[in-house]
Formats: sequence, structure tokens, C-alpha cells
Amino acid sequence: MANYPQSPFAPETFPVLPALAGFTMATAEAGVRYKGRTDLWVLRADAGTALAGVYTKNLCPGAPVDWSRKALAVETNGPRLVIVNSGTANVFGGQKSRDAVQDTAKGAAAVFGVEAETIQLASTGVIGVPLEASKLVDCFPDILADLDADGWESAARAIMTTDTHPKGATAIANIDGVEVRINGIAKGSGMIAPDMATMLAYIATDAAIAPPVLQAILSELVETSFNAITVDSDTSTSDTTLLLASGKAGNPVYDSPNAPELENFKTVLEGVLKDLALQIVKDGEGLTKFITVSVSGAVSKASAKKIGLSIANSPLVKTAIAGEDANWGRIVMAVGKAGEPAERDKLSIWMGPHLLAESGEVASDYTEDSGAAYMKNAEIHIRVDLGLGVGEAEVYTCDLTHGYIDINADYRS
Amino acid sequence: MANYPQSPFAPETFPVLPALAGFTMATAEAGVRYKGRTDLWVLRADAGTALAGVYTKNLCPGAPVDWSRKALAVETNGPRLVIVNSGTANVFGGQKSRDAVQDTAKGAAAVFGVEAETIQLASTGVIGVPLEASKLVDCFPDILADLDADGWESAARAIMTTDTHPKGATAIANIDGVEVRINGIAKGSGMIAPDMATMLAYIATDAAIAPPVLQAILSELVETSFNAITVDSDTSTSDTTLLLASGKAGNPVYDSPNAPELENFKTVLEGVLKDLALQIVKDGEGLTKFITVSVSGAVSKASAKKIGLSIANSPLVKTAIAGEDANWGRIVMAVGKAGEPAERDKLSIWMGPHLLAESGEVASDYTEDSGAAYMKNAEIHIRVDLGLGVGEAEVYTCDLTHGYIDINADYRS
Repeated sequence: MANYPQSPFAPETFPVLPALAGFTMATAEAGVRYKGRTDLWVLRADAGTALAGVYTKNLCPGAPVDWSRKALAVETNGPRLVIVNSGTANVFGGQKSRDAVQDTAKGAAAVFGVEAETIQLASTGVIGVPLEASKLVDCFPDILADLDADGWESAARAIMTTDTHPKGATAIANIDGVEVRINGIAKGSGMIAPDMATMLAYIATDAAIAPPVLQAILSELVETSFNAITVDSDTSTSDTTLLLASGKAGNPVYDSPNAPELENFKTVLEGVLKDLALQIVKDGEGLTKFITVSVSGAVSKASAKKIGLSIANSPLVKTAIAGEDANWGRIVMAVGKAGEPAERDKLSIWMGPHLLAESGEVASDYTEDSGAAYMKNAEIHIRVDLGLGVGEAEVYTCDLTHGYIDINADYRS
Repeated sequence: MANYPQSPFAPETFPVLPALAGFTMATAEAGVRYKGRTDLWVLRADAGTALAGVYTKNLCPGAPVDWSRKALAVETNGPRLVIVNSGTANVFGGQKSRDAVQDTAKGAAAVFGVEAETIQLASTGVIGVPLEASKLVDCFPDILADLDADGWESAARAIMTTDTHPKGATAIANIDGVEVRINGIAKGSGMIAPDMATMLAYIATDAAIAPPVLQAILSELVETSFNAITVDSDTSTSDTTLLLASGKAGNPVYDSPNAPELENFKTVLEGVLKDLALQIVKDGEGLTKFITVSVSGAVSKASAKKIGLSIANSPLVKTAIAGEDANWGRIVMAVGKAGEPAERDKLSIWMGPHLLAESGEVASDYTEDSGAAYMKNAEIHIRVDLGLGVGEAEVYTCDLTHGYIDINADYRS
């Protein structure tokens, strides 16, 4: 695998993710596929940790996703493990893949003293190559010895595939006067599309949240974060987002996701999820520009999102932006092909502050020069108003460049 | 507009399309956008010609499509005109676009002596630039003088945009012992996706076919031809396919598209449509490989087609093929993301004669070497069997290469 240039949007440093009560972790070089780098991360959550998860909607999911979906439903009074490897996705390896999943879980259960069927597993990397479980299992004794409350940045590095930088975010929220911390890491760069992506994201908090409430909150907030990003419209077989809450902060527990005391927590959590999601798009394979697509005036929120994704996934729109061409004609095309209610003559289109088109034609005071100048920006904001209703949505994507072709015509992923 | 290398699949010569009783035509250099080449074609069909049409499903269609849809429904006892220009699509030009359409039709009506509201108009090229009707109208007197039964190749050239070669096909069919001829031309290279594309196709025959029967036949046969091709999943605002039947061959007329006497005509016509459709894909922007995707074992024909298009539109599948990588993992991904019934462990995947994967894992006697050797071919055949039902479909596409980025990051289309 070649070395690709780092994303122009890569943050200068990885944020400082402090230790979080109730969680320990370690990484190792299991040698699944990559040499000279870590490719295995184990996260241990103390007994009493609540777990929520959202998995890929791809109908040919990997064996680890099948396993983890079941594990999510298994209640336990003991600690929980999350085990993630990079290098192979362990997808479509038939019985070998299923055996590898079971062997990994059993091996971990023996070493870490947890129930095998409660363990969350994820694998990311090439499809079609079964995981050799022994490579992971052989590392578990050392990992057990290494478990530490610190290590979020190392974790973010161990789960990378074509990512050009590790991705993390952290924030503090307040639940009824009690301060709680949220840490998150993510990986993903290609095969990124709703619903989800080859995207793994792990978010941990010391807040105390009842499991069904935690699940409801996660399911709601992925819609405006991980499910609002697309690099190439392709949906991975391995996508996983987990949210773990250890409860060590000792805040009061509520039995509804709509409890007013949880408002701040949800807002801050949404910020963390969105931060991670945008880091993924901004590390999109080969990108030179980050694109926000805002759609308003649609007949519904769902219709607005579908139109936004039609624009964000259009190769012609994405290549035009790569070429710094304010080609709103292709945006009209993408609106029209979405199959959602739209009327050409009510459509307005902006690029950043510039109104390009309205009432079915080019805006009277728009000049190609002003559009061309705006397109030089690294961050492009496409705004479309349909003039039909109050439905709104925002989605995020990147341009389509030679770099994407370079990466995907020679990386076996 | 730069000069791009000719498609490796370009035919050596344009086929000889003989004159067809009932049709005359001419081309001109109207100077809409291009210099030093023809960009206007007028086809005149004698009184009594039956007309069928299929237009883009894009919900923001061009003014010419709006006009022509209406014109299709207008019956006439007089001759009909088809007027096509390249250089601008006359889409999203607001009132100016609508005026241009009307002015073109009225100008042509006066010169050619036909009813304006029966004229079929099409424009292809950049979106957002209104057509200057006077440029076309000024050419009409010369075109009237030049009308000739020959000129199909010139016509195919005049309607090109990013096409690297003109596209034509011809064939002879037999209706109840009477020989009839079918000629067709087409253009299209990018923004090619079902339903249709920036794709124009004009098919003419001297057969006698009742208008409703002609429409039924065309609507049926576009499904396996023009609606089974995709270059980049983007659907143009201007797509148009017309089928004109002059009736001069004097064959018997039937009142059902299912008349057994029409079987041969339909088969031959399907061949012409498919020939033209594949010429369009094989001239896909920047392509190096032509890809056929055959899906079988789906729960229905529609499901098979949706899965086929999911594979054919996947940027990761298309870049893998550009890189000559038999990456069946990405095909699994594309099957799964289609949202249609699929079971990972019943899936089989072939590349040409090579069985790559079956029962949810790599085929036991498949070797990467045999796959790699096959991928060197210019024509790649992906075959997927879902093992669920009897639904089958075949779709056609091309790979995604640096050439596509080159063309679309700097061509204002």
C-alpha cells in the first residue's frame, strides 16, 4: 500500500483525550496485514457500563458485524470488551470468517475474564480475506498487562486503514450539575456513504445513562453526523458506531432520552459525533476540497436529505468542484435526478454567499468571476432552496479527484 | 474544450446508413458554441410518419424537453421536423430558454412549412446557457435547400458534444414478408445513467407502424438498451430518444405491439437500440474498459436490475477495474448496498469464466493469478448470482479513470 499525501484538512495535532473513569485500553502489533504499525485495539469497560450500537445497513455485512449485533443484545453484569483490528475486514470469508470471530471472542474471554458473547468485535480493511484469529489471540496476554486508562491516540492510530491521520474528539457536558466527559475516536476515508461507511467510531463517556436511553440518543444523533456524510456513495460492510457509558460520573439517571436534564449532554455528544464525522469526510480519499451541501425548502426533511445526497454523490458535481468550476447546471441536474419533488422554476442555488441561480435561470447580478473566485476556497458551501416547503437537511462530502483514482485503482480494500 | 483521446472501442468506420424513404435531412454550422464544426441537424419526416418518444426522468428537464413532450402528443397530417443542436442544452435559462424554444419552432415552421407545435426539439451541451434561437433560425433557409435523403453520418457528427466518435447503426427487418430498414444515430458520453443520460438517439424506419404501437415498442425496448447503461450515475436534463416510422415500406399495419408479425421487427430494432446504447457506454468519458454486469438469481427482474446498477455505479468497483484488480469484495459491498434482497452466503461471483466467490467465501479453486490475467482484457464481464429467485438483468458501464476526472474537472457541461 502506497503512501498517500496527507489530507489538507488534517488537524495539526491530535486532541488530548483524558483518561475516562471506567475505561482502560491497549494496542498491539498483531501483524494482520500491515508491518511496523499497530493494528489491534482492545477497550475494556468496567462492569455496569451501558452500551449502544449502530451497524451498517449493507445487506452483506461482515461476520464481525453479525456477531456484534447479537452481542449488543446480550446483557451482562460483568465488564465488556471492544476488540478492533485493521488490515482485514474479515468479510465474505465464509465459515473461516465466522470461526475467526468466535475464536477471537473465546480467546479474549479466557484472557480478560469476560463473557465471550458480550464482546464487541470489528475488523476493517480488505474484504474477502478471513482474519487469522490466532494473530489477535496471541497478543491478548500482553494487552491485558498493558491495559491503561490512557491510550486514545494510540487507539485511533491502530484502527486506521487508508486514513491519512488519526481522528479523535473530546468534550465536557453537564447533566443536572454533574460534569461528564465524552471521548471519541473514529476511522474512515473511503467507501464512505450513508448509511455509515467503512467507518468505525467509538465514543465513551463516564456519564450514567440507562441503556435504552443511550441507544435512543445514539440512533437519533447518527442521522445528522455519521449518516450525513458521503465520500463516494459506497456503503461498507463493516460500519460500526458504539457509544459506551460507564456511569462513573455519578450523575442522576433518567428514563427518557427527552429528559430536559439530558439536553446539554445530547448537544455536546452531537458535537463530538459531528466533529468525528467531518474529520472522516475531510480525510476523504484524494480530496482537495470539503463540501457542505445545505438543502432547504424541500417538502420534508427526508426529501431534503435525499436531494442533498444526490448532489453530494454526483460525480459530475464533485469533479466540477475539483476543477474549481461553479457549475450550478450540474447541481440542477443532481436535484432533478433525486426523484424528489422539485420545480425547476422555483429553484435557487448559492455557492457560499453568491446567489448563482434563481427562478429557473442564472441570477441577474451573478458574474462568473465572483463564482470563480469563491471556488478557489478549500471549503465549499453549496446551498439549494427548493421553494416548496420547510424541509431542511445538511450533508457533507468532498471533491472527486485524481487522488481518489490513484488510491482505489491500486489499493485492495 | 480540450481534445481528448479517442475511445479504445471506437469503431474503425461509421456504418453505411442508406437513405430511407420518407426522410430527408441536413446539417449546418450554426456557431452555437463550437467553431469550425457542425452543430445543427434538421430531420424532415414526410406527412404520415408515426412518432414515438421517450424523454428524461430528471425532474428539472430542459425547456426543449418540456416542448417536445407536448409536441409528441400533437397529431398532424403534415410533415414533422426534428431539430437538434449541440453546444448548449438550453436548460435552466428561465424565460430566455423557453423563448428560444418557441422562436426556434416558429422560425422553422415558417421556413419548412410545418406546424410549429408538432416540431421535436433537442439541445445538448452546457447547462445554464440559453440558446440564441436566431443562430439556428438563420441557418434554416440553407438547410431547406440542402435537404437530402443521405446525411446520417453528418447528422451523427453534428450532435456530438464530448463524444470521441459519431455513433450510428443500421439493420434490416422483415414484417410479414416486407423488408423494412432501421437507421439510428446517437450521442452521449458523460452524464450517462438510467434513466437515459445526456443521451440523444434518433431512430428512423420506413416501416409502417401505428403510433400507439410504435410508442409501446419503444417504451419497452429502451429498458434493455438506453435504460440499461450507466457511465457515472448522473441523469441528464435533456435525454431524448425518438423513433420515427414513415410507413413508406408499405408493410401491413397491426394494432398491437404483440402481433406475431412484429416480432422480427422488434428483435431487430432492439439490436439497433442496444448497438447504439453500447456505443455510448464504450465512448464513456475517460474509459479504458467496457463492463457488462449480469445479475441472475434475484427475487425479481427489477431487483436484479437495481443490484446490477448498484455494482455498475459503484466508484470503488469502477476504479478497481480501471486498476485491473479482480476485487470481488467491492462487488459484495455493492450488492449489499443496493438494498435489495441478498444473502451473503448464497452469493456467487464470476469475472468472465472465473468463479471468484461462492457460498459467502472465495471459490476453492480460484487463484489471484487467473483473476489478474482476466482483468487485463478490455471487456470485462461481471456475473453475480444471488441464489434467491429467477430475476435476471444485464447492465453496461465502463471503468472510472483519470480521464473522467480530466474531462469533468475542466469541461463546463
